[in-house]
Amino acid sequence: MTKIAIYDTTLRDGMQAEGVSFSLADKLAIARCLDGLGIDYIEGGYAASNPKEMQFFHEVARLGLECSRVAAFGSTRRADCTVDDDVSLNSILATKASVATIVGKTWDLHVTLVLGCSLEENLTICAESVRYLKQKGLEVVFDAEHFFDGYRANPEYAMKVLAAAAEAGADALVLCDTNGGSLPHTIHEVSQQVCEAFGSVVVGIHTHNDTDCATANALAAIQAGARHVQGTINGLGERCGNASLCSVVPNLAFKMGLEPLSPEKIKLLTEASRFVFEIANLPPVMSLPYVGDSAFAHKAGLHVDALRKSKQTYEHIDPQLVGNERRFLISELSGKSNILAEMEKAKIAQDKVLARKILARVQDLENEGYQFEAANASFDLLVRKIMETFKPSFELIKYHVNVEKRNSGDLVTEATVKLKVGDEIEHVVGEGDGPVNALDAALRKSLERFYPALKEVQLFDYKVRVVNAKEGTAARVRVVIESRDRQSIWGTVGVSENVIEASWLALVDSVEYKLQRLAG
Amino acid sequence: MTKIAIYDTTLRDGMQAEGVSFSLADKLAIARCLDGLGIDYIEGGYAASNPKEMQFFHEVARLGLECSRVAAFGSTRRADCTVDDDVSLNSILATKASVATIVGKTWDLHVTLVLGCSLEENLTICAESVRYLKQKGLEVVFDAEHFFDGYRANPEYAMKVLAAAAEAGADALVLCDTNGGSLPHTIHEVSQQVCEAFGSVVVGIHTHNDTDCATANALAAIQAGARHVQGTINGLGERCGNASLCSVVPNLAFKMGLEPLSPEKIKLLTEASRFVFEIANLPPVMSLPYVGDSAFAHKAGLHVDALRKSKQTYEHIDPQLVGNERRFLISELSGKSNILAEMEKAKIAQDKVLARKILARVQDLENEGYQFEAANASFDLLVRKIMETFKPSFELIKYHVNVEKRNSGDLVTEATVKLKVGDEIEHVVGEGDGPVNALDAALRKSLERFYPALKEVQLFDYKVRVVNAKEGTAARVRVVIESRDRQSIWGTVGVSENVIEASWLALVDSVEYKLQRLAG
Repeated sequence: MTKIAIYDTTLRDGMQAEGVSFSLADKLAIARCLDGLGIDYIEGGYAASNPKEMQFFHEVARLGLECSRVAAFGSTRRADCTVDDDVSLNSILATKASVATIVGKTWDLHVTLVLGCSLEENLTICAESVRYLKQKGLEVVFDAEHFFDGYRANPEYAMKVLAAAAEAGADALVLCDTNGGSLPHTIHEVSQQVCEAFGSVVVGIHTHNDTDCATANALAAIQAGARHVQGTINGLGERCGNASLCSVVPNLAFKMGLEPLSPEKIKLLTEASRFVFEIANLPPVMSLPYVGDSAFAHKAGLHVDALRKSKQTYEHIDPQLVGNERRFLISELSGKSNILAEMEKAKIAQDKVLARKILARVQDLENEGYQFEAANASFDLLVRKIMETFKPSFELIKYHVNVEKRNSGDLVTEATVKLKVGDEIEHVVGEGDGPVNALDAALRKSLERFYPALKEVQLFDYKVRVVNAKEGTAARVRVVIESRDRQSIWGTVGVSENVIEASWLALVDSVEYKLQRLAG
Repeated sequence: MTKIAIYDTTLRDGMQAEGVSFSLADKLAIARCLDGLGIDYIEGGYAASNPKEMQFFHEVARLGLECSRVAAFGSTRRADCTVDDDVSLNSILATKASVATIVGKTWDLHVTLVLGCSLEENLTICAESVRYLKQKGLEVVFDAEHFFDGYRANPEYAMKVLAAAAEAGADALVLCDTNGGSLPHTIHEVSQQVCEAFGSVVVGIHTHNDTDCATANALAAIQAGARHVQGTINGLGERCGNASLCSVVPNLAFKMGLEPLSPEKIKLLTEASRFVFEIANLPPVMSLPYVGDSAFAHKAGLHVDALRKSKQTYEHIDPQLVGNERRFLISELSGKSNILAEMEKAKIAQDKVLARKILARVQDLENEGYQFEAANASFDLLVRKIMETFKPSFELIKYHVNVEKRNSGDLVTEATVKLKVGDEIEHVVGEGDGPVNALDAALRKSLERFYPALKEVQLFDYKVRVVNAKEGTAARVRVVIESRDRQSIWGTVGVSENVIEASWLALVDSVEYKLQRLAG
């Protein structure tokens, strides 16, 4: 089968999506997830733009990714300097990434109007930039910006730019529909021209969704011979987004008989989609093809009836191929496979009766706003509770949180926790930068005497999400906390109308999980 | 120009979307909106399914629609009765609609497995059903269910079904990709076969988005000669949805040189999209092509800079063509150009010195974790403060928030606010489901006596995001609040290490923005 290289730009183009902004920790978590999916290339970010981006490349190197190569993004050299002292190119080298992706102009309008140099100069700029990075031993991906607009305006020149990059040694020529304005038949025609002209070099495709055709456009180029496709998880990206790898990959594998990722990896797509939504702090899009909650949800009675007779009557593929599941909206019987998978992950024997019990509980909790994608520890505790193997390490008598602000600007935050460990009662007070921080301080203070191991637990990430935004500040909030000790990282979740209580629940789970693990 | 008939099924297929259910009043409001758009056909619903559906047809007739014809939906007659006593066909007649759309089986698997009759019988069923409705003087649209799957399984039979419907007098043969599993190249090939075989009859296309190609599939059929396209507003529909008319229509008009709706009507698309989201009680999808809030929102500074030189550099069409607008997002990736553009929109004289001042301040605030993308009101207040035109409506003396939990499970949340308006001092207490809710209650209570207009302000959305996740619960949090009154929606932001304080800041901005606008 023909292998298609999958190039993910969630961490660069994806972050251009309105309302999306990834912390360094977020970017590393997503990189780990993409590597788990077997993605061939992970575009880490625009090296020159800010220190956070640079920091990412240094930290991701320490993760020791198994499948993915990391690409540093930048542009061709400025018109007014040489490659040796060009900031963008040298910051790419500074990332120590083995792959460099540089964007070059192919639309004559952009060259003269935006770069403000001659068409000839731009050819030199592209060639020199590619050659410079090749000489440093990097694999070079050349992103031909606005290629389809450029080709329409001046086909001869657009092709000249590709030729310049190819002769300079570019490993891939990626045709970018930067403004997303093209339709599949144009993409197909133009890509065919390019593939015929540059048989020896890998041709790639980068599309945006401004005509609602990002996925179809990517497929059209691949049908014309492209062998490298760029996109993002969930199609996150500037304006209307990029091609969604969650759609492109299954289409290539199940509809076009090509090999984007291995079948086992494709089964992880739904989980990856939800994980990225969670990290981006965005509500998942239910109707997302293949990976959305509704993608295999059947509402019409007629459909459900026919489905009972044969799945293919109203399903174009088996949902399990992408790790998703069939749901009958009339009779809410979803998710057992998920639960069994989760149990497997939590290394719990796959008992179907137990699974059904857990499923029922998980569905109740999900209706209350819980979500276990990023809260493995809370799920583990949930299972222990249902199996009745959970012994609480302490009993809460009360907690109290107090925040006061005076016009002097002083903020006083105080939390008291009163709890019972065995027969002993502990009542302590903690301070902090905020109510949750103070509550956390008090909780640890009250327990460390009994459980010294808690000293090594560190809260690493803290996320709050409104579950049903409709009621404004009265909405339920979901708090997800990531904790770590020397050996591992675990996530816990709490839900309440009260952000303090939701945080408390997640804090307690974090502590209990650590202690249960010690107890074994 | 070639006219393409636009057939909307928001009221039937659209209502199959998970979580969507329209009341009779909703359906009538949407019908009026579609008529205003100049839609050719409005599919009103499945006449036989329930009385509400039937009621719709009687009431919509009284609306006196100007442009649209209403179509009643049903299926071919049952195998075990005659057309004269078939419930589905007769309920279509009972609607008094001038157009009947009936769905017939074209996939042999469905005929034998689901209908449970012979392939020959089904041909008779389709022919008789069409002829019956034609004899009653209706325009008949024949929806060929699963046509593309049927054609793949048994092309000869699939074509026979179309022939039967055509010979019986069907006015349009609509090829339905019912399971949504097809890709554009297949749709194009098969549609071409059909158009060649049935030159005299109008061929239509009905697509679903299960491969993320609903729009591209619809366009592919039209390129092959189809002249009737079915879809829904915002692509609402079962599972992954239907083709979105908000994407299909502009693509046909601006990319393919066809005539779906008049240019004046196309300018109403963005408004229609938001209206339908509102009626469906769904949060608008920001990234929707053409009509989404983000469709022409520019975040990258480089892009904005180029756009100021020429719009076409990073825009595939003029947003006004679809009634949408260009937006420049203020973010860590933006430069002076975004600020200038914002000032332009806020009708503030474009003073470069002022712009530089503002940019410097915005960048400082962003380093503290602020983000103005979703907080236009806070940005507006920021500008007023820098221009020294801002007069605070009140002065905080102190606030106090109190959360207590007892092991009984009871949660007590209370907030007090003490502030000064003019020379008067107000000290009030509020309760709420959570600390922010209580604080909001107290703040309004304390101000409404002085500013009654605040009564109409409603908090609509509340988001919390940790900015620098690394320090766990001591991290800074960013709170973004969306407020609305009868006229408009505005966003405000607050950042602090303390979620209560961050929320307070956003609440205060929300109130101040409303009051500043009143003051003008």
